[in-house]
Amino acid sequence: MNYETPLFFHVMEYADAADRDVIDMVSGNPDWQPPDALREGLREYADLEPDRFQYPPSEGLLELREEIATRRGVDADRIVVTNGAGEANYLAMARALERDSGDEILLTDPVYPYYPGKTTMLGGTQSYVATDEAGQLDPDDVRAAASAETAAIVVNTPNNPTGAVYPAETMRELVAIAEEVDAVLISDEVYDHYDLSGEFASALEIDSDHRVVTNAVSKSMAVTGVRVGYAVFPPGLVANAKSRHMLVNVATTRPGQYAVLKALRETGPDYYERNRQRLRDRVETFTDALDAAGAEYTSPSGSFYVMARFDGYPGTLENVERLIDEAGVAGMPGEAFGDSRTEWLRFALVTPCVEEAAERLARYFD
Amino acid sequence: MNYETPLFFHVMEYADAADRDVIDMVSGNPDWQPPDALREGLREYADLEPDRFQYPPSEGLLELREEIATRRGVDADRIVVTNGAGEANYLAMARALERDSGDEILLTDPVYPYYPGKTTMLGGTQSYVATDEAGQLDPDDVRAAASAETAAIVVNTPNNPTGAVYPAETMRELVAIAEEVDAVLISDEVYDHYDLSGEFASALEIDSDHRVVTNAVSKSMAVTGVRVGYAVFPPGLVANAKSRHMLVNVATTRPGQYAVLKALRETGPDYYERNRQRLRDRVETFTDALDAAGAEYTSPSGSFYVMARFDGYPGTLENVERLIDEAGVAGMPGEAFGDSRTEWLRFALVTPCVEEAAERLARYFD
Repeated sequence: MNYETPLFFHVMEYADAADRDVIDMVSGNPDWQPPDALREGLREYADLEPDRFQYPPSEGLLELREEIATRRGVDADRIVVTNGAGEANYLAMARALERDSGDEILLTDPVYPYYPGKTTMLGGTQSYVATDEAGQLDPDDVRAAASAETAAIVVNTPNNPTGAVYPAETMRELVAIAEEVDAVLISDEVYDHYDLSGEFASALEIDSDHRVVTNAVSKSMAVTGVRVGYAVFPPGLVANAKSRHMLVNVATTRPGQYAVLKALRETGPDYYERNRQRLRDRVETFTDALDAAGAEYTSPSGSFYVMARFDGYPGTLENVERLIDEAGVAGMPGEAFGDSRTEWLRFALVTPCVEEAAERLARYFD
Repeated sequence: MNYETPLFFHVMEYADAADRDVIDMVSGNPDWQPPDALREGLREYADLEPDRFQYPPSEGLLELREEIATRRGVDADRIVVTNGAGEANYLAMARALERDSGDEILLTDPVYPYYPGKTTMLGGTQSYVATDEAGQLDPDDVRAAASAETAAIVVNTPNNPTGAVYPAETMRELVAIAEEVDAVLISDEVYDHYDLSGEFASALEIDSDHRVVTNAVSKSMAVTGVRVGYAVFPPGLVANAKSRHMLVNVATTRPGQYAVLKALRETGPDYYERNRQRLRDRVETFTDALDAAGAEYTSPSGSFYVMARFDGYPGTLENVERLIDEAGVAGMPGEAFGDSRTEWLRFALVTPCVEEAAERLARYFD
């Protein structure tokens, strides 16, 4: 079996090895500070008694699950604390495929490339529904594509790579479609704290036995490397997901869970608002410069990404590497996100140098 | 699909909920101190710049892989840093089954129950080779059981639950058998620092394209909750294992990797020897008391466990729960480890109260 491994790490390594300074806009790694309480949580943990260094409950520390449950308005029993949203999505997709209700995973085009990779690994087949130019998904298109073969519909809102935020009506329709064809809507909401539009609607708002929500603090707390996320399952699907989690990972890292719990409790809304405002400023700076360069682009409603298109410069891996070497800006090839964005490049606004990056792009494509 | 979830967490919860003081000898959670350098590593990490909180390389921090590679005498490219030995074994077993060279996983009886659980989850089938009373595995029995259908042979040395340590000759034969039937020997060596016999032989000593070694610092550094382990794959099998790791977990927790790297570098042999000596003392104390109680038992050559048999008290879950309630000692039911040990109970020597526990058992069975 050959999996398609997402290209992120490859492009980052290429950029690191480049013989010049490169502005890194490849991966969704925030460059801002984690909450102080998260750092303090790690310090506190370091001083705990030996028993606190041992296995936490497999499904996650009870206090952490309760904290998440209260915030999300669900029963703690339905939550599995995972090794980031990555494992949460893996568990959700595996659970959907194991229901013996089809082996098709319905994805969007463009798509976050881990989803098709996980699908292949889990023995499922991918089908794609195209979004519009702005990244919005028409539920009628999803309904037309869904069938008895559909095991899951996987969406990501706010969206990577398009920056789209799906309105509440779309989320309601997606859950309804999952119910109609006996599939599971998997809503990956890891960018929920970076909704710039005020339009974000969590799938948790629609009660259903056909809906799983995945999330993590990786983006909201700027700690992609700590690896603490979670999935909220319907009551009928959670037991088997917990078993898979136990059999794959035994448990999620305890120092990370401890620090995240402290950070959830002690971090006020100003932390998150500051990060959103920084992102808004960067979007404006970057897109202004793209305007000046005459490039086409999407202005994100949420998440970290701007997709841009430069005339005669398709979004291939080769062109991304050339841009690293010749312009000193590292993005992601649009082709990594699906057939509909092969002309595009994706830039993550996770560097203080967005203005300089935009200027380099403008000079290069001038 | 219904997985068989290992019972450990269930028994621990039962013991926690008991209406009396209970000596916990259920799980392999060391009660001794982690290395000071590991604690210090977490403190150091807490003060690092934001970029150090982001995704490490998917296969693990380069410096950690190099540190492990040097210690184990292998190329760093063959190492995947995992979420504990649990994920390492999952990756190894998945890799073996994907080779399209059989779907049988050959296990020992008694067995560490995560192995059959993982096998079912991965769509494989279990076969068992019985060990002798001391837990030793006769390679001729393995050879007789192995066939073209065998994808992997999974062993654990030093062994949980028997305490057996396989001699070098057994390891050589097991690798040879894997080569003969085009299978993979997976050697889980997570208790390697608790060899009390001096006889431990790592499968890494035998160079082969049919051998994967898994390990972790969970036991050696008394940090089962930190979740840092690794697998060493043959060159031809490593790429796909790295892909699966990326698609399941993206990466292993970075604060944990950082702290473990520091602890590997700065912890001297006295730390490990002190823990072995404590274990030797506890084995002696516990088995002396079992002798006095007239119980049958195995004295471990390695790992944390003593298997004991009390006349007319088979090792069922029901009897384990009765022992918790009536004697105040929590062990694991032998039936959890396979058909051959249904008469036995397993006690983990990870409490300072082993003498008190043995006395309680002696009184209860008097």
